[in-house]
Amino acid sequence: MYKVIITVRLKSSVLDPQGTTVKGSLHSLGYTEVEEVRIGKTMELWLNTTDQVEAGKRVDAMCRRLLANPVIEDYEYRLEEGA
Amino acid sequence: MYKVIITVRLKSSVLDPQGTTVKGSLHSLGYTEVEEVRIGKTMELWLNTTDQVEAGKRVDAMCRRLLANPVIEDYEYRLEEGA
Repeated sequence: MYKVIITVRLKSSVLDPQGTTVKGSLHSLGYTEVEEVRIGKTMELWLNTTDQVEAGKRVDAMCRRLLANPVIEDYEYRLEEGA
Repeated sequence: MYKVIITVRLKSSVLDPQGTTVKGSLHSLGYTEVEEVRIGKTMELWLNTTDQVEAGKRVDAMCRRLLANPVIEDYEYRLEEGA
């Protein structure tokens, strides 16, 4: 059993209107020290498998095929055993 | 200047229909080893400040007031200096 934590972020060259909106809201609340906000996704997957190398390859394929849009997003993941 | 990475997740007692949908899609693609999927948000904030303790307190307040819904979500954050 492995737990995988995947983080998907917009590439830095891609505009993040959601982040800009949140920044504006934080400024309205008085948090004017906030200079930039970028918003991404985090996904936790539990995998019923024992082979860490194979699990990593399959998670990478899941990210490319479904979980991230490689045109505008970067992804990274880490595996935790037995979680 | 500090970079803050905030992770907001649904509490484990709260149903995650988005995660369930993603799990179904992964199964359809043949990734049947996926037993559970939970989806959250990750936010990166850049703060123009020099006081780490004060920055931590203010980030905690931002989470409670705007970035997370404490009724159904948990949040955690970490500060990185000069990022």
